[in-house]
Amino acid sequence: MFNHVLKNVLPRYAFRCTPNVWQHSRGRCDPSDNLDYARTLLDIFVDRHFISPGHRNVELFKRGTICSYGPLGTELRDNVLHQWWRSMSGSKDQVFGINTPSSSGSQDATGGRWGHLRVAEPDDLQKILKETELSREQLVQNLHMLLQTSPLLRTSLFHGSLEQFVPIFELVNRKLPFGIAETGRCFQPSKEGDGCPAEVTEASLVWFCSPRTSSQWMDHWARQRLKWWRKFALAPSDFSSSDVPQGELEGAASRGVKIFYRFPWGQEPLEVLWSRGDGELLQMHKGIRSKLQSRDGRKSIPHIVSTTGNIDRGLLAFLYNSLQLHKREDTKQKLQQRKVLKLHPLLAPVKVALGIGRGATMELRQVCDGLLQDLKEAKISAWPGYLESSSMPMEQLNSKYDEMGVLFTAVISESTLESGLLQLRSRDTTIKETMHISELTNFLCRYISAAGNM
Amino acid sequence: MFNHVLKNVLPRYAFRCTPNVWQHSRGRCDPSDNLDYARTLLDIFVDRHFISPGHRNVELFKRGTICSYGPLGTELRDNVLHQWWRSMSGSKDQVFGINTPSSSGSQDATGGRWGHLRVAEPDDLQKILKETELSREQLVQNLHMLLQTSPLLRTSLFHGSLEQFVPIFELVNRKLPFGIAETGRCFQPSKEGDGCPAEVTEASLVWFCSPRTSSQWMDHWARQRLKWWRKFALAPSDFSSSDVPQGELEGAASRGVKIFYRFPWGQEPLEVLWSRGDGELLQMHKGIRSKLQSRDGRKSIPHIVSTTGNIDRGLLAFLYNSLQLHKREDTKQKLQQRKVLKLHPLLAPVKVALGIGRGATMELRQVCDGLLQDLKEAKISAWPGYLESSSMPMEQLNSKYDEMGVLFTAVISESTLESGLLQLRSRDTTIKETMHISELTNFLCRYISAAGNM
Repeated sequence: MFNHVLKNVLPRYAFRCTPNVWQHSRGRCDPSDNLDYARTLLDIFVDRHFISPGHRNVELFKRGTICSYGPLGTELRDNVLHQWWRSMSGSKDQVFGINTPSSSGSQDATGGRWGHLRVAEPDDLQKILKETELSREQLVQNLHMLLQTSPLLRTSLFHGSLEQFVPIFELVNRKLPFGIAETGRCFQPSKEGDGCPAEVTEASLVWFCSPRTSSQWMDHWARQRLKWWRKFALAPSDFSSSDVPQGELEGAASRGVKIFYRFPWGQEPLEVLWSRGDGELLQMHKGIRSKLQSRDGRKSIPHIVSTTGNIDRGLLAFLYNSLQLHKREDTKQKLQQRKVLKLHPLLAPVKVALGIGRGATMELRQVCDGLLQDLKEAKISAWPGYLESSSMPMEQLNSKYDEMGVLFTAVISESTLESGLLQLRSRDTTIKETMHISELTNFLCRYISAAGNM
Repeated sequence: MFNHVLKNVLPRYAFRCTPNVWQHSRGRCDPSDNLDYARTLLDIFVDRHFISPGHRNVELFKRGTICSYGPLGTELRDNVLHQWWRSMSGSKDQVFGINTPSSSGSQDATGGRWGHLRVAEPDDLQKILKETELSREQLVQNLHMLLQTSPLLRTSLFHGSLEQFVPIFELVNRKLPFGIAETGRCFQPSKEGDGCPAEVTEASLVWFCSPRTSSQWMDHWARQRLKWWRKFALAPSDFSSSDVPQGELEGAASRGVKIFYRFPWGQEPLEVLWSRGDGELLQMHKGIRSKLQSRDGRKSIPHIVSTTGNIDRGLLAFLYNSLQLHKREDTKQKLQQRKVLKLHPLLAPVKVALGIGRGATMELRQVCDGLLQDLKEAKISAWPGYLESSSMPMEQLNSKYDEMGVLFTAVISESTLESGLLQLRSRDTTIKETMHISELTNFLCRYISAAGNM
């Protein structure tokens, strides 16, 4: 029976249209409709605790920068980061994770190149401003000095990986290729002087390879990264990639590829890949070639292919991509809108919600407590809907769970106490089936891992 | 047979002394020896890629602040954070994870209370300094203004949780108790003007409960948190807790508990718990009691118990705690020192190293490739020792893996090709046993999960 559920439910995931679909709004309306649509979605993301309420917070979220994430947004973000790491460490070649400070000490040799924002200690500044005997010129000079010696906040993770190159190169016995991966917050100066510097969660891979293979690696990673984004998409065609025009290449890069997502308000980049040669590595390590040469016959200096994704904007893209609006008539012939957040099973922040139906509440809750514990031990995130005291009708609860992207809803009722059978509703098909309570955890594990292998 | 291994190996983990133990240096030497010992350990942590080399980086690490972590340190840090989250979400009561920006916008109402460091945009500062027509007074005034409107960097995660209280309180239908958890970087001003502000990875739980239960909850969490630290310790007695004296209570706290670790250079706090009442919650939400009242009969304003751990210093503590130095005589009667990093199986960054013995290298590597893939799929972090081209003797390799804290070393050799049997060496017992290659993944899963349940 559960194989039947698995077969029935899984393949449908790949399709956007279920028999009930009325219309999927995206890409069919005029631009103002698109913006209305975008607002509707943002409201859902706030209502369902993906992000915290507040105009400023929603603006940060929409820009693709770090905002205050609610419990569901936090879980989703963790899942995205986890999948990113899995894709990196799953690579056949070696990828090493690192973690570096986000501010450099004032003694740091990387200097101004590293970033624009600086950490200021107001006390130090106040001290200078209070020195009344200083002339105007001396004051300005002292402030310049303070500014130059203040720690810098990183704008990207790239230089951290360059700095760590030598010890890791030794670790792999100077054999190429290998990668250095890091995820973390970066700080970007405010645009157009709105006084609001942005924080972004970046996921960065810096790939070191022999010069003659760098072009192939660039192709490889561009393909892999687009594939990764599309893997979790409901509508993969909204993710696309294109070469960066020659005139827009940054720094030492000889080639660039950007991966875009088509938002209701236009296309925005999620990830950027650069083929950067060996110049930056030589510069960072002051041209000491002996430290940088590989152990192959050619003693070549590694070339770099870097790829940097913006996880916050990626999260926004996955949310937009997976929300479906269905219009349908209810039993009273009234037109209703069903909103379903069809997040990929691996990304969905809640895999199953537990509810209770008719029966002795105390006993049903005890059963739910036990089930919740089993699910936790199997690392399946479950929503204890049975703890909510509200007497919401099941249909309304289902709508709520659909908007939260909850994969399944399990209802424990009197008959569960008698026969062990519970009712399981699928988010994607809305089909309800019965299942023995002892099989739920196993079923969910198989369902999620099957979706991961697709 | 493997049950035998499991039985034989697991219980020993709980003991510090294996038959080979010569002396465990900690706490038996005079202070200068202790510092020598501390230096030896730091060298190992650098050599084995827990942290990056460099005097400044080692200093940051020793202070318990964020430093540049190497691949093993990064994995260990992730494991510690993962276990922290597991312990929080494993709680019977509801704990919600959140994620907030580390800098507040200039418009933020939390004001100076939030922290001392600010983000400065050098361009803005330069602009003011360049305005030559400004008088000295105007210059100082403009700079003051700029300083006051610059975004603040958070010094703790506490205020983020307070800010998010209302939507999450609604989510749980205003039922107490529940918790808000967050992990992330915080920024602390430099001490004694060394111009070096510190970054720390904090793990914070803010627990909201009814006023009459807050004292019990304080006891509960103080007990739980100490238990958590000790769970992963080799020498649990080095972790201790004590009440904060009345004179040293911070802010609104009526009670405080600190959890300490005894480092070779003295005791330092890893985590602090405060029983804080309802004052800060009321202040944050401007005293609007209606938003804050619980739905129980008393309509009480929740009281807060907070607990904040320093994950970076915790990592340092786990590393110090788990390193054992054994002296023993080798076959030539020379005294040798064996250094073993007996990290808890759940924390060890590498669970198994794969090496090859005698036999056709190409074929053995293929077997290892397949095994590595299996282990990755089972989410067991494995070290592809067979890719290292060095011809290090097995004994030296084992020493290296012991210093890395690798739980097991599996050696694939000619006989593996014939019979499927490999040789498995345990870090903790140094005993070597044979095992069928098809059982390795399963054995490791069981071993790690058994250690997690102890």
